[in-house]
Parts: sequence; C-alpha cells; structure tokens
Amino acid sequence: MTEEILHSEYLYRGRVIKLRLDQVRLPNRNIVAREVVEHAGAAAIVALDDAANVLLVRQHRAGAARELLEIPAGTLEAGEDPTRCATRELTEETGYRAQQWDDLGYFYSSPGFCTEIMRLFLARQLTFDKPSPEEDELIHVERVPLAEAIRMIERGDIVDAKTMIGLLRVARVLGASGV
Amino acid sequence: MTEEILHSEYLYRGRVIKLRLDQVRLPNRNIVAREVVEHAGAAAIVALDDAANVLLVRQHRAGAARELLEIPAGTLEAGEDPTRCATRELTEETGYRAQQWDDLGYFYSSPGFCTEIMRLFLARQLTFDKPSPEEDELIHVERVPLAEAIRMIERGDIVDAKTMIGLLRVARVLGASGV
Repeated sequence: MTEEILHSEYLYRGRVIKLRLDQVRLPNRNIVAREVVEHAGAAAIVALDDAANVLLVRQHRAGAARELLEIPAGTLEAGEDPTRCATRELTEETGYRAQQWDDLGYFYSSPGFCTEIMRLFLARQLTFDKPSPEEDELIHVERVPLAEAIRMIERGDIVDAKTMIGLLRVARVLGASGV
Repeated sequence: MTEEILHSEYLYRGRVIKLRLDQVRLPNRNIVAREVVEHAGAAAIVALDDAANVLLVRQHRAGAARELLEIPAGTLEAGEDPTRCATRELTEETGYRAQQWDDLGYFYSSPGFCTEIMRLFLARQLTFDKPSPEEDELIHVERVPLAEAIRMIERGDIVDAKTMIGLLRVARVLGASGV
C-alpha cells in the first residue's frame, strides 16, 4: 500500500512552507503526480488554569482570511524540540508559564497533501510572566471556561482543527480522571 | 485586527493546490509577507452503522508519507455542493449509501497558511451499494466500533485531524442524545 517516489522537484522554498512536486508509482503500477506542501511542524497548547478556564488567542489568520479563536500555537524552529517550542509559544502569545506539562500526542492537519504534524500539549499550574509576541503577531488573549469552549465548538464558534482536537481531548481526559 | 492585502502573486496553480504570495499591511502598519496555500475545500463523513460501528479507510497519504486510518473524505470539485461531495465520496470510497445525513459543521485544517475548509457530516442508515475508487486511490475499508475508534485516538493510532474531530464530535452527540 505504499507509494514509490520516482522523482521529486521543489517548485518553491519559502519561510513557512516548501512546495514539492512528486511523481509516484502506486502499488497497482500506475504513475501519478502528487503536490506536497512541506511544513516544519508545530506545537499547540491547551493551557488550563486552576478554575478550569482555558487560554485562547484571537488573531487574524492569513489562510482563513479572518479572525479566529484558537489555542496558543507556533511553528517549530529548525531542529527545535516540540516541548521547548510549546513552552516558548505559550509565554510569547499569552504571557503565562506552566509548571505541569502533559503530552497529548500529535496529528496530521491535512495528510493528503501537507506534511505538517501538530504536537499537542496540556499545560497546567499557570503563572503569569509577560507576553512577547513576534513582530507580525497581533494577539488578544481570552480566558474561557473549558465547558463553554466545548459549547463554542458545538455551535461553530471555534472552527480551528488543533483547537477542536485539543479541547475535545482535554475534556475527555478531565472527565475520565475527575480532575 | 484585519490584515490588508496590498499585493498578491500566484507562484503555482496545480491540481490540488495553488500557492499565493501576499504582501499585507498589519493593523500596526507593519508590512509583512504571507505564504498562502489555496485549496478548494473538502468534505468528510462519519458513517455509522446500526451497531455503532464507524467506517474507516486505510490508504497511503502523500503528505504524511505513510498509511493512515481515516474517515472517508474527498476534495470538492469546482462549484460542488459539500453535501453532494460527501454523498459521492462515501460511496466511491466505501461502497455504502446513507439514508440519514446530519451536518456537523466545518473547520479550518491549518488556518495560518492554508485556505482549506473541511465540512463534516454524520451519515446513518447505511446500505451497501458498491465502491468505485478513483484511479489513484487504493483504499481498504475497515469497520470499527465507535468506542474503539475513540480509544485509537487516545492511543495515537488515529492521527488524522478530520478523523479525530469527526469521531470526538459524534461521540459527544451520541453520548448526549443517548442514541
């Protein structure tokens, strides 16, 4: 069931993505073209305070061409450890640091054409430091009860994949453990 | 909080994606570049039989460079209605048709750089017709109890965004309604 890559050509190498055009041989011997968007991967954080509020960030997103409400996240820098990236992004975007970190696994955002892997973390025992957004990030931080954030998913007010997966996973983790 | 697009240039127009380079002015007046991957959008289907098994498809995915277990899904054809796309893809990939369709909303796969919107549907009252995969799709269909599929998410055996969101949403819908 694997595809054999016969030829690869880079059409674009940018800051966030690279675009690759592959020629592949399928298991049935047919040869087809595949457009592949290469992405360095990212880390996203469900940051939960002691009162079960989650930290969400509101910002304009170029792909969606609108403002979205999301969990904090950021792209991995070259060779960066995902846990370190998550720690850095939480503080940059929200100003908070967390004492307790749990790994919630990973997912592919759009595995048909994009290599992006999103790592997910649960961050607890939060203390406020100060935010330091990057030059091109303009971010509002909002604190929302987790139960309300889940209702926002069900109403269609939260429509970002990593945020939906992170919050739905954490709601199950907390529901199961009674935390 | 919006970004004003000052200039757009298409670097690539392909079969699945287009690549656009924008120059944008931020609300703070800074001017930055944005790489935007344009995608036509897609529809994905949580197909549930009368015994609460979900239909999953196993196939090689070019972005992930590996086989993944996912809910059936496909890219919208030009001007295609998402409900029609979902109906078509369910039959093409699994051979099943559904009598009952519910809209589960939508999400952005990776809104920072990609326009892709994924529409989600719950399909029930399934009857078997016959599969008709596209030439470059080689797909195995598996029937998995919904509760087991949720455990596969928690174990990291299901790592595709649309599949995780679709199954976690449906588990909540069924749990809440007692269906």
